[in-house]
Amino acid sequence: MQELLHPDLPFRLNGRLWIEGPTERFMGIGRLELLEKIDRLGSISRAAQEMQMSYKRAWDLVTSMNQQAREPLVSTQAGGKQGGGAVVTEAGQQMIREFTALQARFQAFLAEESRHLAQ
Amino acid sequence: MQELLHPDLPFRLNGRLWIEGPTERFMGIGRLELLEKIDRLGSISRAAQEMQMSYKRAWDLVTSMNQQAREPLVSTQAGGKQGGGAVVTEAGQQMIREFTALQARFQAFLAEESRHLAQ
Repeated sequence: MQELLHPDLPFRLNGRLWIEGPTERFMGIGRLELLEKIDRLGSISRAAQEMQMSYKRAWDLVTSMNQQAREPLVSTQAGGKQGGGAVVTEAGQQMIREFTALQARFQAFLAEESRHLAQ
Repeated sequence: MQELLHPDLPFRLNGRLWIEGPTERFMGIGRLELLEKIDRLGSISRAAQEMQMSYKRAWDLVTSMNQQAREPLVSTQAGGKQGGGAVVTEAGQQMIREFTALQARFQAFLAEESRHLAQ
């Protein structure tokens, strides 16, 4: 591959991974980040804010994940001035760990393949 | 991972790979398909038509690939009623082979990782 690339330009192999359910995405890098932020902030609205995402969008993503998982990944409680809190469940914690590990294996694959691009 | 997924739903691991240059993409699955169609049809406009892509878009993609490659991947000749022909060069043929092989290794990675999703 290297001999096909312009010698004066830097190139980088990049990619994305996701898990698809029957009609929509189940898990991907954005949903992982959302789970991590909910876990840290204890709130869907604050997680949405940090991701510069609308509350509706974040709520829809959480609903999509919860409906496709065996057990909910995020547990919400209604009420309160802040609209209630949100907790990443044990299943959600496990999802964070496993999808993070999958991402790490994918990064290793990309790094290995990137050696063919090295100038 | 499997124990986190709804048991009644089918799941599939999917992904995309691409090579980034300094300011824009250099190669990806869409550009690969465009190269293959130009090679088969001998024409950028007919390749664009088959991909339901505007001629301008296809031309811009070819220009982007040619400018970032060490040698042009597609050679064009002006004139003629059909706007001239286009030929995938030897470098372009090699790019098709190598990126196709990279895609195959990526598919093998996805297949291997998908075993963790199997119900």
